[in-house]
Parts: sequence; structure tokens; C-alpha cells
Amino acid sequence: MSGLRITVWNEGMHEAEQDPPVMAEIYPDGIHGALAEGIRQELPDASVRTALLADPEHGLPEEVLADTDVLLWWGHRAHGQVDEAVVDRVQRHVLGGMGLLVLHSGHFSKIFQRLLGTTCSLGWRDAAEQELVWTVAPHHPITEGVPNPLVIPEQETYSEFFDIPAPDELIFISSFDGGEVFRSGVTFFRGHGRIFYFSPGDQRYPVYHQPEVRRVLTNGIRWAAQPDQPRAAPDVANLDRHWR
Amino acid sequence: MSGLRITVWNEGMHEAEQDPPVMAEIYPDGIHGALAEGIRQELPDASVRTALLADPEHGLPEEVLADTDVLLWWGHRAHGQVDEAVVDRVQRHVLGGMGLLVLHSGHFSKIFQRLLGTTCSLGWRDAAEQELVWTVAPHHPITEGVPNPLVIPEQETYSEFFDIPAPDELIFISSFDGGEVFRSGVTFFRGHGRIFYFSPGDQRYPVYHQPEVRRVLTNGIRWAAQPDQPRAAPDVANLDRHWR
Amino acid sequence: MSGLRITVWNEGMHEAEQDPPVMAEIYPDGIHGALAEGIRQELPDASVRTALLADPEHGLPEEVLADTDVLLWWGHRAHGQVDEAVVDRVQRHVLGGMGLLVLHSGHFSKIFQRLLGTTCSLGWRDAAEQELVWTVAPHHPITEGVPNPLVIPEQETYSEFFDIPAPDELIFISSFDGGEVFRSGVTFFRGHGRIFYFSPGDQRYPVYHQPEVRRVLTNGIRWAAQPDQPRAAPDVANLDRHWR
Amino acid sequence: MSGLRITVWNEGMHEAEQDPPVMAEIYPDGIHGALAEGIRQELPDASVRTALLADPEHGLPEEVLADTDVLLWWGHRAHGQVDEAVVDRVQRHVLGGMGLLVLHSGHFSKIFQRLLGTTCSLGWRDAAEQELVWTVAPHHPITEGVPNPLVIPEQETYSEFFDIPAPDELIFISSFDGGEVFRSGVTFFRGHGRIFYFSPGDQRYPVYHQPEVRRVLTNGIRWAAQPDQPRAAPDVANLDRHWR
Repeated sequence: MSGLRITVWNEGMHEAEQDPPVMAEIYPDGIHGALAEGIRQELPDASVRTALLADPEHGLPEEVLADTDVLLWWGHRAHGQVDEAVVDRVQRHVLGGMGLLVLHSGHFSKIFQRLLGTTCSLGWRDAAEQELVWTVAPHHPITEGVPNPLVIPEQETYSEFFDIPAPDELIFISSFDGGEVFRSGVTFFRGHGRIFYFSPGDQRYPVYHQPEVRRVLTNGIRWAAQPDQPRAAPDVANLDRHWR
Repeated sequence: MSGLRITVWNEGMHEAEQDPPVMAEIYPDGIHGALAEGIRQELPDASVRTALLADPEHGLPEEVLADTDVLLWWGHRAHGQVDEAVVDRVQRHVLGGMGLLVLHSGHFSKIFQRLLGTTCSLGWRDAAEQELVWTVAPHHPITEGVPNPLVIPEQETYSEFFDIPAPDELIFISSFDGGEVFRSGVTFFRGHGRIFYFSPGDQRYPVYHQPEVRRVLTNGIRWAAQPDQPRAAPDVANLDRHWR
Repeated sequence: MSGLRITVWNEGMHEAEQDPPVMAEIYPDGIHGALAEGIRQELPDASVRTALLADPEHGLPEEVLADTDVLLWWGHRAHGQVDEAVVDRVQRHVLGGMGLLVLHSGHFSKIFQRLLGTTCSLGWRDAAEQELVWTVAPHHPITEGVPNPLVIPEQETYSEFFDIPAPDELIFISSFDGGEVFRSGVTFFRGHGRIFYFSPGDQRYPVYHQPEVRRVLTNGIRWAAQPDQPRAAPDVANLDRHWR
Repeated sequence: MSGLRITVWNEGMHEAEQDPPVMAEIYPDGIHGALAEGIRQELPDASVRTALLADPEHGLPEEVLADTDVLLWWGHRAHGQVDEAVVDRVQRHVLGGMGLLVLHSGHFSKIFQRLLGTTCSLGWRDAAEQELVWTVAPHHPITEGVPNPLVIPEQETYSEFFDIPAPDELIFISSFDGGEVFRSGVTFFRGHGRIFYFSPGDQRYPVYHQPEVRRVLTNGIRWAAQPDQPRAAPDVANLDRHWR
């Protein structure tokens, strides 16, 4: 599965505003930069591009999506600024077979809400707590080579109730210092596409530099990619033939 | 479970345009009228109201939805004319716990697409074929007292691929004269709400007068209703307490 | 739903051996006694009987099962002593529509393994840790009136990987002091029957006296009971009729 | 994924008894022979062995299973003659990660019932009817390159209710001349293993010579195989470490 075409989308607001200040230290090349670096390390044959909210068409014109096997989505502050036409386009590509990885605060992104139909709300607290990410689907390719638990020393706390449809596959459940639990790794099949949501990762903590997290993301990319499939059009068909 | 509050929504275009002409014979009181009549027969304690696209706010202002345990939705020609603000409102109520029954060509309604995230497309042919509705979840309350198969003498043919997420429960599978199959009864849990899609029923055939179909719909209403639950607000919560 | 017929099965070994000694204090009438008492409190119209491993046919002859809407199962030390013929019989009744609640260490019972097909193994540690039981299906009747989280002051720790099939419904996820997580409330549909596994409860801790736990168990009983359904025989049928 | 190790198990009773007589014409090398031939054609790098009920330990001693990535199972008349110890062993390997394809009348095999926990009963009629196998999961690798519908000119009719747990993935639904429907392609995850049940194929019809059917089976083998994973032991663990 060499030669995967990956697009990393980042809202880029924390980077632009240098807020929080610690971010410049943790992610000098932006969250998208750290994500892209991790993918290039693990998948040296992949071609990885990045795209930002501030880019024309948010960096996601038709030709970019048509040339993307898997799109990663990181957003937080500016979900409301994402153009509906771009959301329409991304949704169409996911339903047609493009893989999508939604990360952390991307749970509130328009594209995730659009594809799931729910509020995608959750409980949260930012207190630099340890997160333990437990595997509940050891047969699943996304868990391959991932320690159980995967320990994240400091992370924002996310908690149930996570208002998503019952996932097609439940991969990871996390616990936090305060005792909360969260379905931190879940997959959804929508149309011809595959979606993986993974909650660890935040602008305040260097989570995307952790090798185990990079392993999860790369596994997720491999799992979500369908490079040999043409992008499918919606199947609306008048049946012109009787089979019996 | 007496006293359920049911709202039957109908687009009303076939009725308004008297197209097809046969409709005036089959559904002299409109599709909504036949649906309401069936519910009143089977659930004499229920209060049943109807609402139409042509009504102010499509007959679905906030106070009507707040007073509705289960909403039935029938539409076909005018999905595009349904106001986005009304779709927002219905979605909010479903996620908050209101039951929703989506019927037949309502698969292409904005509210169904909104809640499922997919195109909800399918294959179709209008050839007055026999539909056989087979039960695949005999333990499920929606199937109680329903013959297996339920025989519909003439009906529009619907066929896979039905572009929906994997349903939370698969209740019925239909076959048609031409050999096609269709997941004709499926449920979805979204937020605090319960959704039941049932495909039989069309403007050309007297399906909604069939007692067995009325039984399915009434079972679906009973199953989707949560009359003792307050309508829940989305759970977005900052966690102010550590539990350990 | 008055008049439910409930049978509480307990292995009874901890009681017989008075081991651990604390058990005589916590459960003077046995674990089955405490469970039965809780059910009688919450469901005063129910008829509740108990049955023990030491009884003839383990207290579960055909006529008892035929007269049971929901069976509760608690076992720990003597899973291997349960007669295969009794397991066959219970399985047949569950597949025919009898509800089954499997409790705590009953995860390793023959009947649970038989119905699920997996080892049902898990991780564990007995260290009197606090268990927090979080709701992940707020729409589900089993969660009605249950605090979120439900706090159990001291409990044996159970941990993933819990080797069960993906449950039909995931209701509760627990966390423990050590940071472990566990799918502590899960349902399965098998044949015509409904199964609810709930992990809290142990011979060392007074969990079954907790009102919130009794609420969960009673909700589970109501959910699993199908008192109006005749016990179904397996459907093996030679199709003698063409439908078209 | 070259070098897969495949074992095709066949009961071999129809072959031994030359009953029905047509079988000698259709399957001169036995059903296992035709299955093995199809796999060798499509997966030239695979090593394919066959095993029969009449072989010592039914041809499935520990060393054969330890050397098998995917096991195919065809049985019909002699399910009761399969030794429980062999069933135990196959179950252990499946839960440990070995792939399993259960074919046609194998729905009533001990190993399928053991892994699923239900009766696995269904309706049937042997009337040489056309079967149409429709894809309901176009994103799934098992459907790759498979025509929709896959047409089987003559086949035994299988019908719902198929008494299996809700499958983890529903891949194919079939219809038959008489109007019946059947979930003809379903997958289950159990322990670390992957199971695919595919119903077409019978001793009376040359189904296993059809290229499209061979494609489905080969896709199923590729999907079920986890050649790089060591066979996992059941995870029963005393937790000796606190993570926080």
C-alpha cells in the first residue's frame, strides 16, 4: 500500500494567534506540521500535503480531494468559519470512498456532525491529566503494535456521554485521572467511506509527537485508505431490468 | 402507554395536485389522513394531529414539536422546499428524545439525510409489484403480531444498495417480483431519540389502509415513544468535579 | 408489567463454605437472598424464587424455567460443576425468549460462554477499589433513573480486554482506581431472548444492597422480560409454499 | 499477502455415498476438491490442503490448525459425528486468530453453533431456484469485483428467519424465486478471529465452479486471514499493576 495520498487539514487558529504560548514550543511547525511529519516517518512512500482554513477554499478544492486517499481533520476554535460548500464537498468525497480521520476537538467540526447526524458533544476538563487508552478490539488493524494501555502523560480530559451514533467498531476506551471514561477510538462506515475518530491530541500537549500515537494514526490511515477504488458516485438508480 | 401525542407530517403535494389521479380515490383524506385514521384505530387513547408543508412553519413550530412524542414523516416531490430552520428544529427534538418514523419516499427527506449523514439513495421501479416483507428480528416489539411475510399486493419496488449507515437494528427485509431485495424496516438511535424507517407505502397504492401495515406503524410508534422522558438538551458539559 | 416471574440462581459456594468470612455479615441470606430482596422491593408484584447449585437439577428443572420470565445468574467457584444438561436447558429457554441477567463473576459461567461463543475472559484485581459506572446509552431503559456515574465505593476491579462479541448494545463503561476500564453493562440478543450482563457485585462487597444497583437490576429485568410471548421453539422449517 | 495457508474441510459424506448421483458429475473431486481448485486458481501463492471427517482427528490435529491461516468448513449430513474435542480445538484457534469460512449447510455445524451460541436454524426448500445475491456493503473488501447481483442459476432455497446473532457486518442478502430472502453473507468477530458465513453452494448444484462465487470465497479468505499475527492465547489476567 505504498504511495498513499494524505491530506492533513488544520484550522490553524492556535498557530496564527500563538495561543496558548506553549504551542510555539510544542508545535513549531503547527499541529498539521507535526502530524505530517509523523506520517512521513511511518509511511515513507506516502505523499503528504497540508491544508489550512486560511487557504483558498480552505485548501480543499475539488482537485485536492480527488487526489486524496485519506484526509485528517484538526479544528477547534473556528468550526463555524468552515464554508458549507467545503463541508458538502468533503462529505461527498467521504461517501464516495475517501478515508477520514477526525482528531480530538474535531468532534465538533461541521464535517463530523454532518456525517454522524448528532451533536457530537461530550464532557471536558483541561487539567493536564494522564490518559490511559485501552484496546477493546485487539483483532482490529488499528490496534496493531499499539501498547495496551497507551499512556499519555498529560492530556485534556474528555468524558462520556459522547453524543455519537453507536460506532460501527469500538476500538479504544480511555480513562482519566478524575475517573472519567471516553470512547476515544471509534470507526464509522458511511457510504463507501471509512471514518476513524481518535480523541488524544490537543494544542497544549505534545501528544502528536508520541510514537505510539503516531502508530495509531498511521494504522488508521492504512485502514481508512481505499486507494484502488474509484471515487464512487451516489447510487441513485432507476431499475430498468427484472432479474426474474 | 395511553395518551401518546402523535404528529403526522405530509408534504401534501400529490394531494394538492391530484396527481396521480388515482390518489383521490385511494387517499380521499390525503396520505396523512389515512395514516392518522390508522393510528386512531389502533391507539384510541392517542391524540393525533396532522401537519402539512403548506402550513405556516410547515405545521411544525416549536410548541407542536414540544407537544409531540412521535412524528411521522411522509414526503416525495418537495423535499427541497422544506425549510432548513424546520429541519434544524426537528433534528434537535429527535436528538432530545422525540420519536421519528420516516416513511417510504421520505428516505430522501432532508431530516432523514441530516440524521443519518448519507445520501439515503436507493434503486427503484414503479411497476405495481408484489412486496414481501420478511421479519429478521422476531424478538423485536415492532414485529409483534405482524405476519411473516407481510404481503403487499402492489407496491413500488425499492432495491439495494440503500445508502444508509448500518442500522442499529435490522427488522424487515423485503423482496419484490423482479428479484430485488431491500432493508425495508430499520431502526437508528440518535442522541436520545429513536428512529424507525419503514419503506412500504406510496401515493399509487392503498398500502396505508392495510391492517398489517397499520400494525407495523403502531408498533413503531409505541417503540419510538418515550413519553415519560423530558426532552433532553444536548449534553455539553465542562466537568467541574473529579470523581477520584 | 406486573406479575413478572423471576428466578434468582446462585451457585451458593461462598455461602456454604462461609468463605470469605465477611460474607456472612454482608449477605446473611446469601447473595441470592439479597438479590431477591432487592427485586421484591422494586417490583412488589413480581413472584421471585431462588435456586441453588446444590438443589436437584440445580433448582432449574423444565417446569421452573417454563415458569420464568427472567433468570438471574450468579456463580464464581463452581462453574465446572454445573451440569451440561442444565446448561442446554437454560440455553434453549433463553433462545426461546426467557430473559437472562448474568452477574459479575458469572462472566465465566458455562451458560454465558455457551450463548456468546467466546472465552469471556477479562483482567481482574481484588483491591477494594472504587468503581465508577458511566452511562453511554442515556436513551436506554436500563439506564432510567440511574445516576451518572453510579459510584460503588469498593469493588473488585475488572478490566479490558473483555473477550465477548461486540455487544448489541453498550450501556455502561466502568473505570477503577488503578485506571482500568471495563464494559460493565452490555446487552445481547440471542434467538428470541434478551441477555444483560452487569459486572458490579462480588462476595466481598455489599454492592447488591446499593439502591442504585438494585435499580439497574430491576431495569434490566423489565427490559429482558417478554411475559406476553409464548416460549418459541427453534424455527427449523421446510418451506412448503412459494410466495410468488 | 502471498503464501496463505488454507485448509478446506469437508464432511465427505455425499462423496462417500455417491448420493445424490449427480454429485459425481458435478464434483468428481469432491466439494473440497472444487473449493481447493478455486482457491489455487485465485491465490496461486497459497498452500491449500484438504481434510475430511473420515481422516484421523478429522484431519484437524493441533499441528494442522497451528499451520492454518484460514479454515473453510463444509458439512451437511454428519454434523453429529464431529468429535467435540475437535470442535473445542477449532474454536480455540478461531478465538486465537484463525480465520473461518462456514459454507452453506455448515450453518448447522457444531463449530458454527458453538461460536455463535444460537441454533443457526433457517427455512429451506430444494427446488432448483434462481438465487440473486445482492451486495449491501459495497465498501467491504469481500464484495470487491463481485457483480451485483451475483446470479446463481439453480440453488437450494434458504430463508429467514436465520437464527444467528446480529452479524457484525451484513454483506449480502439473497432472494429466491419463491420470494424468500436470506442474509447470505455475514461476518462475525469472535475473540481475535474473523468468521465469514456464505450460504450459496450445495451438493446438487455446481455453484463452487462459478467464477463469481470463487471470487467471493477468495475475498473472504483474504479478509479473514491474519498471517502476521501469532495465534493468541485467551487473555485471562490478574492485573498486577496500578496505572495511576
